[in-house]
Amino acid sequence: MKDKKLVDAITSRDTDFAKWYTDLCLKAELMDYSDVAGFIIYRPYGYAIWENIQSYLDKKFKETGHQNVYMPLVIPESLFQKEKDHVEGFAPETAMITTSGVEDLPERLIVRPTSEVLFSTHYSKIVQSYRDLPKKYNQWCSVVRWEKTTRPFLRGKEFLWQEGHTIHDNEIEAKTETLDMLETYKNLGKDLLAIPFVTGRKTEKEKFAGAEETYTIEALMHDGKALQSGTTHYFGQGFAKAFDIKFQNEQSKIEYVYQTSWGVSTRLIGAIIMVHGDDEGLVLPPYVAPDQVVIIPIQGKKEEVKNASNKIYQELKEKGIRVLLDDSNKSPGWKFSEYEMKGVPIRLEVGPRDLESNEVTLVTRHNRNKKQVKLDDLAVEVEKSMKEMHEEMYQNALNHVNKNTREAKTYDEFKKHLEKGGYVKISISGEEAEIKIKEDTGATARAIIDSDLVTEICPVTNKKAVQTVLFARAY
Amino acid sequence: MKDKKLVDAITSRDTDFAKWYTDLCLKAELMDYSDVAGFIIYRPYGYAIWENIQSYLDKKFKETGHQNVYMPLVIPESLFQKEKDHVEGFAPETAMITTSGVEDLPERLIVRPTSEVLFSTHYSKIVQSYRDLPKKYNQWCSVVRWEKTTRPFLRGKEFLWQEGHTIHDNEIEAKTETLDMLETYKNLGKDLLAIPFVTGRKTEKEKFAGAEETYTIEALMHDGKALQSGTTHYFGQGFAKAFDIKFQNEQSKIEYVYQTSWGVSTRLIGAIIMVHGDDEGLVLPPYVAPDQVVIIPIQGKKEEVKNASNKIYQELKEKGIRVLLDDSNKSPGWKFSEYEMKGVPIRLEVGPRDLESNEVTLVTRHNRNKKQVKLDDLAVEVEKSMKEMHEEMYQNALNHVNKNTREAKTYDEFKKHLEKGGYVKISISGEEAEIKIKEDTGATARAIIDSDLVTEICPVTNKKAVQTVLFARAY
Repeated sequence: MKDKKLVDAITSRDTDFAKWYTDLCLKAELMDYSDVAGFIIYRPYGYAIWENIQSYLDKKFKETGHQNVYMPLVIPESLFQKEKDHVEGFAPETAMITTSGVEDLPERLIVRPTSEVLFSTHYSKIVQSYRDLPKKYNQWCSVVRWEKTTRPFLRGKEFLWQEGHTIHDNEIEAKTETLDMLETYKNLGKDLLAIPFVTGRKTEKEKFAGAEETYTIEALMHDGKALQSGTTHYFGQGFAKAFDIKFQNEQSKIEYVYQTSWGVSTRLIGAIIMVHGDDEGLVLPPYVAPDQVVIIPIQGKKEEVKNASNKIYQELKEKGIRVLLDDSNKSPGWKFSEYEMKGVPIRLEVGPRDLESNEVTLVTRHNRNKKQVKLDDLAVEVEKSMKEMHEEMYQNALNHVNKNTREAKTYDEFKKHLEKGGYVKISISGEEAEIKIKEDTGATARAIIDSDLVTEICPVTNKKAVQTVLFARAY
Repeated sequence: MKDKKLVDAITSRDTDFAKWYTDLCLKAELMDYSDVAGFIIYRPYGYAIWENIQSYLDKKFKETGHQNVYMPLVIPESLFQKEKDHVEGFAPETAMITTSGVEDLPERLIVRPTSEVLFSTHYSKIVQSYRDLPKKYNQWCSVVRWEKTTRPFLRGKEFLWQEGHTIHDNEIEAKTETLDMLETYKNLGKDLLAIPFVTGRKTEKEKFAGAEETYTIEALMHDGKALQSGTTHYFGQGFAKAFDIKFQNEQSKIEYVYQTSWGVSTRLIGAIIMVHGDDEGLVLPPYVAPDQVVIIPIQGKKEEVKNASNKIYQELKEKGIRVLLDDSNKSPGWKFSEYEMKGVPIRLEVGPRDLESNEVTLVTRHNRNKKQVKLDDLAVEVEKSMKEMHEEMYQNALNHVNKNTREAKTYDEFKKHLEKGGYVKISISGEEAEIKIKEDTGATARAIIDSDLVTEICPVTNKKAVQTVLFARAY
């Protein structure tokens, strides 16, 4: 039944995971390369995944009192210099507009790599009193970072994201915001992406340029590498002092605001591919999939097949299910391969024999299970299948995380675990141990986790252990 | 009742329309200036108007088979040169990235002023057969044009827009797309913005760089000037030939595709302000307004007022009406001025006396009419008021257009009419007349309209008249 040529065109995961990944990005028509290295084209199928993520998050943001804004694309170089840690973190990798083509600009303009300084400057102008606080703004946009090595969705010179920026009149509220947004991201994984994110605080070494605290959602890919999939930052009053964001508090005293920022990007598309995909292609979790159901007529020229297919299409569409009917004259086998490769969650085969008993065949992409479904129950069955599929995919990904999270009591054990892929949990003395681990093994601290110490003494430095950290090799 | 200080802060329209406009943009918190001239900040209230426009259009685009994509921010300079008319139109005004901060780029990258060349390059890669056609893509993004004189929303170095780009296997289908999208924009005016757009074809002189035909939606501002508010272009095979977008047709012959593009931008926010605004501030048409109803408690400390206000808020919200409750301790008078200035379509005054007879006072912003409304009918009454308000605002704007569209049979008459503001309809011989009119009067050809000739002879050149054109001074 399968069109060999098509399926064979994707490298298998165990042969070459990196090649499997880029093959899939292209073959599934998620993206294409442009003429400028590191800038990709988000094709309709890839962009539609992003739109579904946007729609989920935008609703959550608004429900919790956030407002969308749009800040300029460019930042004057001098403005960017104001917060020292921030500029050190970003300076090596910023694209600069220097000319309008006919004349050089008086000052170089940085194409935003992130917009803390733009929000901070604006906030300093519009906030006077505690009555103006909090301000909880978000923006959907693209940002530019001059990365040397790029890979579709995972690391690009340009990517799409949302960046939330909030200011508050007290520390507790700002810290709560930082953790609330982390929770929102974690729920995005749970509700929409079927990805169990591990959450935790970043070490001093790994935190965001300018932040006091950075929290992260980490996902574990099929190949055992971790992917930082989103972060939330608590800035304290650092930017507020650099950009003079002051307000008069209830006691009429002048204070600096407390600030946060947080973002997720189109990198999440990479996470979906590498967590759920298999050797046949993409496997899209049903709630984020652009097309949730594909209807494939078998012997599609027959009148009863044609009519039933159209009727099913209309019925599912009216129920709000994202459904596709492929009544082209390609063979059913070709279509099976094609939509498997594209990861469409549910396939409905509508054939004359099944129709005689008022049934169609329903196939779920993630486990290839087939079952006969009565036409009368179809919409209900599809919705039930999507729900089960989502839960199973989440559970499978969670099992993968649990199976690949190992504890290390000695440095040798750490190294041995690391070779198996996945997270290694270890209690360390601090940055000295973190640096040594990275030098020796290439693994980085993904997150500090709430946990009892694994050992009292750090196995790397033999000093007193102070925190328990998940390490992994990462994208 | 009014807070004089606040209201007086806006210049009246007749005193200085340009100042009234920018005062309003700032005071109503639609936007703010950034540190780079020509780049504005879209504040929540302004951005929310854009989101409502997006949501209307995105739905229409998708219903008619268009798909969203995202193309890179940058265009290599050499690629931009490929279509000669296009580059001539845009070359003087393009921002260029020349360095990553640490090293100069091998080729200058133009920050997209529009994306025809990016779409064309991509299409040339992905289209082989007539079976791949049509492709109907759209993208939401910002573009950069290095304008010398800028004004909020009307003309900026950066603005937000959508740009549709489609390719087709025949001329008729492409031309139909060009006109269908013009119709979509016209309906946007009718359904959402309460703006009666005049539509027509642009003259050769005014058409888009690279287009065979450009169509336009033109709006007439309160001051009698026209505003080009959106355009659709038919490219024929010009870009297809420059970028080699070929396909095999049903007869297995190789052909070039037929192409269109079309866009509207945040300039529409400027149109809304200048068509509907009055000396008290913004007047927002109800379906595009971020807040459709504001509830203002009178003697808000009284328990029954508080309860009724909250109950009304919940009820309207549940009906899907965008409603705001201002229960702050500012005076009702201050609030009246504030929300009038912000153009909130409907104000509900909830006071103890009205409540005794189970009523509230409903005030419509555009005409300041007050009426008593029974609590039981409130949601229905609000929806009815919004509908009437929308229709009246549209009709008022249409009356303004009709009253200010005048026919000229002589050049003297043309000049006299022009001084009154608005459109002057005149039949001309062609570009020679168009250039002379612009030189003599500053008026430009807004649109060629379907109409009998006003005169057989062009009053400007005394040559044979061939087309009837609406002229106006324009933004």
